[in-house]
Amino acid sequence: MGIRIGVLGATGAVGREMIKVIEEYGLDVDELRLLASPRSEGTKIPFRGSDITVHAASPSSFEGLDYVLGAVGKTQAREYAPYIVESGAVFIDNSSAFRMDPDVPLVVPEINGSDALNNKGIISNPNCSTIITCMAVAGINRLSPIETIVASTYQAVSGAGQGGLDELEQQVNAYVNGEEYEIKKFPEQIVMNVIPFIGSMTGNGYTDEEMKMQNEGRKILHLPELRATCTCVRVPVMRSHSISVTVKTKRKVFVAEAEAAIDSFPGVSVTFDMNGRDYPTPIDTSGRDDVYVGRVREDLVDDRSLTLWCCGDQIRKGAASNAVQILKFVEENK
Amino acid sequence: MGIRIGVLGATGAVGREMIKVIEEYGLDVDELRLLASPRSEGTKIPFRGSDITVHAASPSSFEGLDYVLGAVGKTQAREYAPYIVESGAVFIDNSSAFRMDPDVPLVVPEINGSDALNNKGIISNPNCSTIITCMAVAGINRLSPIETIVASTYQAVSGAGQGGLDELEQQVNAYVNGEEYEIKKFPEQIVMNVIPFIGSMTGNGYTDEEMKMQNEGRKILHLPELRATCTCVRVPVMRSHSISVTVKTKRKVFVAEAEAAIDSFPGVSVTFDMNGRDYPTPIDTSGRDDVYVGRVREDLVDDRSLTLWCCGDQIRKGAASNAVQILKFVEENK
Repeated sequence: MGIRIGVLGATGAVGREMIKVIEEYGLDVDELRLLASPRSEGTKIPFRGSDITVHAASPSSFEGLDYVLGAVGKTQAREYAPYIVESGAVFIDNSSAFRMDPDVPLVVPEINGSDALNNKGIISNPNCSTIITCMAVAGINRLSPIETIVASTYQAVSGAGQGGLDELEQQVNAYVNGEEYEIKKFPEQIVMNVIPFIGSMTGNGYTDEEMKMQNEGRKILHLPELRATCTCVRVPVMRSHSISVTVKTKRKVFVAEAEAAIDSFPGVSVTFDMNGRDYPTPIDTSGRDDVYVGRVREDLVDDRSLTLWCCGDQIRKGAASNAVQILKFVEENK
Repeated sequence: MGIRIGVLGATGAVGREMIKVIEEYGLDVDELRLLASPRSEGTKIPFRGSDITVHAASPSSFEGLDYVLGAVGKTQAREYAPYIVESGAVFIDNSSAFRMDPDVPLVVPEINGSDALNNKGIISNPNCSTIITCMAVAGINRLSPIETIVASTYQAVSGAGQGGLDELEQQVNAYVNGEEYEIKKFPEQIVMNVIPFIGSMTGNGYTDEEMKMQNEGRKILHLPELRATCTCVRVPVMRSHSISVTVKTKRKVFVAEAEAAIDSFPGVSVTFDMNGRDYPTPIDTSGRDDVYVGRVREDLVDDRSLTLWCCGDQIRKGAASNAVQILKFVEENK
């Protein structure tokens, strides 16, 4: 008997990508149940050659499902989680609602997949920039434990969902046609600009988005003492996030061994030749699952640090693909 | 008697801005002589209500001038420098040709203006990202000497001159109209992308552009032991560069004293309210001389470090305005 999967938030950018990824991965699916808010009731989404109708989610929507992939905000995730768990399905949630809950595993399958097997009905999918950064440095962490991370991000508008994609598209058209910018999702125009503020301010001067690198990084990498300083910046790019990262390890790691460890880590590639360049850009990496790393070099400030650049598709590995990979990992190891 | 100024490379993006800045600053100019390559011979550029004709530069072009502002590449700067010096003019050069020459002052007037007074006929204008970063941290450096800098840049296309501006403009139009991208100045499409490579590769894995932060920073800030790790990234922004910076000082500097020192530093403002935001973006700061700083916060990795964000117009303070300010400083202090 195949798997019965629900997608909660099926009509958003991440929800739609989850459906694509399920199809691409060739999972043995018996039922795909698409759920969203009442205003999306009746929307049809293609899956394996036919259309599936989206239904409005309700507390009784989850009966008979094995897994529910969550692609909704944290408020809705909190609202529906009890019903999902009660129905017996495993909730793989892309929101931040449960990520720091000690009873909820926070999982990037290639790094800490086995954590997912100890779930109590909920597994959290990490923050997008954190997934991509952790994937990029996980190989180094196996050579010597990472002590600190300094990261500056170049985050695509897809991180703000379909509305973010629409806003950049509107503004780029408005730029060319001399029309007004519609500014709704972002605090300032994003076309021809970068915005050094994502999320909401916390008490220490960092945004909640920036604190995820340290908080979620500790849980994913099993590094409870990890310290991370992060600056999150929105850039006018559609889908792929990039991060400039400096990592300090317990012992000095050399560039050659770091590159070998990164490149042999599953789901990660060191970019040796990408369209004639030895570094990745967002455009190269959009629509792909892998995380790409380049510019690995000795840090000039600290003898035990390395500096590198990484890119990964925010909607794929940063959200939808990672969630489906968690599902696959749990299913294959149950 | 007023000043006689030559502009070498008068038709490029920086050269044209120098002419604008000279006009705006109300310098007492007796003669403005505009020089460029032979293909620009006869071009007319407005200055104080009339047009000045551009002439092809030759070894004898500099006779009778007090200052020559250089807005050409390093090869041409090296070619013309001996003729300029021989003519008795002071050459204020925006290229990288002489920046690391121990006989040539490398000057940001607010930081080390007096160095300019010890010139032997040539004064170098620093790299654009380095000027903006040094301005942002100079106030902190007065509180306690800076030991290290970790910087990731978000550099505007104007850094590649008029050709860079034209390339982004062509590509943004091509994006909207579904046409082909012209890729000449940058190694990959820059619209809807970011490119983590500026300049040319050096032997240590860093580009020459990235090494300028350490090499030029040491000279400008009078910090011969400064260590700086820099990642230079091109972003689809027209004019203003942004830099995410972490600085480590000899003693711990607190956020409040750092903000006060930055804000009281001439030519630098801490952004307390810019269109309702307490951080600057490139769009806010384009066309302005000041460097703007925001997001000053305690670093989470190191107790003696601060992390901050800064923006400054690459063509203004990053190039043209700084060069004219050097001229003004030398003129007023001669």
